[in-house]
Amino acid sequence: MKEIVAGVDIGGTNTVYGLVDREGGVVAEGSLNTVSYPEINDFVSALVTAINELLLTGDFKLLGIGIGAPNANYYKGTIELAPNLAWKGIVPLGDLIRAKIDVPVIVTNDANAAAMGEMIFGGAKDMKDFIVLTLGTGLGSGIMINGQMVYGHTGFAGELGHVTIVPGGRECGCGRKGCYETYASASGLVRTVLLLLSEMKEKSILRDIKPSELTSKKIAEAAAANDPVAVKALDFTAEKLAFGIHNAIGFSSPEAVFLFGGLAKAGEMLFEPVRKYVEKNVQPIFRGTVKILPSGIPEKNAAVLGAAALVWNEMLA
Amino acid sequence: MKEIVAGVDIGGTNTVYGLVDREGGVVAEGSLNTVSYPEINDFVSALVTAINELLLTGDFKLLGIGIGAPNANYYKGTIELAPNLAWKGIVPLGDLIRAKIDVPVIVTNDANAAAMGEMIFGGAKDMKDFIVLTLGTGLGSGIMINGQMVYGHTGFAGELGHVTIVPGGRECGCGRKGCYETYASASGLVRTVLLLLSEMKEKSILRDIKPSELTSKKIAEAAAANDPVAVKALDFTAEKLAFGIHNAIGFSSPEAVFLFGGLAKAGEMLFEPVRKYVEKNVQPIFRGTVKILPSGIPEKNAAVLGAAALVWNEMLA
Repeated sequence: MKEIVAGVDIGGTNTVYGLVDREGGVVAEGSLNTVSYPEINDFVSALVTAINELLLTGDFKLLGIGIGAPNANYYKGTIELAPNLAWKGIVPLGDLIRAKIDVPVIVTNDANAAAMGEMIFGGAKDMKDFIVLTLGTGLGSGIMINGQMVYGHTGFAGELGHVTIVPGGRECGCGRKGCYETYASASGLVRTVLLLLSEMKEKSILRDIKPSELTSKKIAEAAAANDPVAVKALDFTAEKLAFGIHNAIGFSSPEAVFLFGGLAKAGEMLFEPVRKYVEKNVQPIFRGTVKILPSGIPEKNAAVLGAAALVWNEMLA
Repeated sequence: MKEIVAGVDIGGTNTVYGLVDREGGVVAEGSLNTVSYPEINDFVSALVTAINELLLTGDFKLLGIGIGAPNANYYKGTIELAPNLAWKGIVPLGDLIRAKIDVPVIVTNDANAAAMGEMIFGGAKDMKDFIVLTLGTGLGSGIMINGQMVYGHTGFAGELGHVTIVPGGRECGCGRKGCYETYASASGLVRTVLLLLSEMKEKSILRDIKPSELTSKKIAEAAAANDPVAVKALDFTAEKLAFGIHNAIGFSSPEAVFLFGGLAKAGEMLFEPVRKYVEKNVQPIFRGTVKILPSGIPEKNAAVLGAAALVWNEMLA
């Protein structure tokens, strides 16, 4: 029998899952429409059935189930007040799953899962102190210190996306203003383009795209074609991203910061100025001590690998 | 024989040391003039001689020596490029002491020692996740996560005093601008008073004190007497202090933040507005989860207790 771990990533639209071996091979996988299950019990039944079906495809011994989900609490195995999920209130996801399949179930938020994936299967294999920033619609963060995930007293630690970087700045979905993710994320880049279109006189192909259809991908493509607004927007975004990073370095002095997700696909157009601004603005004692790196996890399976890594990490301890 | 630990706090002017038992009793103590020993080898000889003399005052078994010092590196046992000490370059303090007295020697910065003291002997005895801010001339910080001190990849983690809170703001001794400690410290409070004296028309007894003689103590006394400039300066300082705290909460979600040192002596005049601003500005998920507390360590012996706690913590592990 081959020892195997199930990794599950619950998103607002889709849930992807897979069986992951010790080497990070995804030996079987599948997906569910999260929105098709407005009742949590129906979702759990469907997920457990799906995992059991995957297990029939080989001679597997299931060691545990790792789950990445929005607003997840590691200590309690719950999803709490997730705005983008149909399940309201506090959902005891870990308990519900364990009632149907008797293995360890570990639940944490998706960015923490990404960080664990980076340590077990990705670019942080030999690191004990690093930070992963996931740059999508928002900014998620997973912080590793001394080889341990930082969960804090509440289980919700590592919420760098809502650190205030501009007091009184851009409105955030959390109800506050000036949060890191309103600047340093794919949607933050879009907002920056809109600001620059208001300030700059230069021609730009971005003036021919409806604001509702602007994406970080289109902006990165425009920047690659030397569109002046796109180039300036990427630089501004890199500076804001670097600001949050240099302050995080003062906190935990990581060996590396990994950038992951939609915005990170801009590649060196983003990484190069981020590195420059971090080095320029970080406290002198930390200059030259931190690598700014792309994720070492293949993006296709990143969410499933990260979730599975939660369990492999505990099995290896 | 009674098991005992030596705690040493090296300051720019004075070095205090003492023998500390498991319960936090300081059973013997003394001090040296740091400035009288411009040669590090002379200092080490004097310190070891002094500790040996203390040990003769009872039937003691020395378990180790804990040292708090500016710019100390825990991993290497060094003091590195300390601007306020005569010893230049990288001083291998741990090795120099061990060459003369064969016990474990642990070196870390003074704020980390304060945090360890808080956990072993003070108000954080039952806590695993907390932060200590020392509010003196600068702002030092010691961060505990999962019951472990955060040293980071370099050994210099927990430098919250130099997190940027106001881009382009006040000049800092580190050569940068807008660092947390230029606002949230005893000297930051003095700078705020000078700013407010320039902006406000109200009468103030602080107008009769030379700027070079202004202290946080005098300002707190003026605030207690309802001096309008002093009252406003304390509120402004509390807001800035709270800003750094609410961002630190997003990072590590501590159970408590302890305030220590000269500025903290302002008491509830400082703590009450700090609590108010933290609750108002922290991310909603963390509201009501963090206590803002005065240190539970008796100030008289705080430095020696903190340094000794470094060793007791390892003995108890």
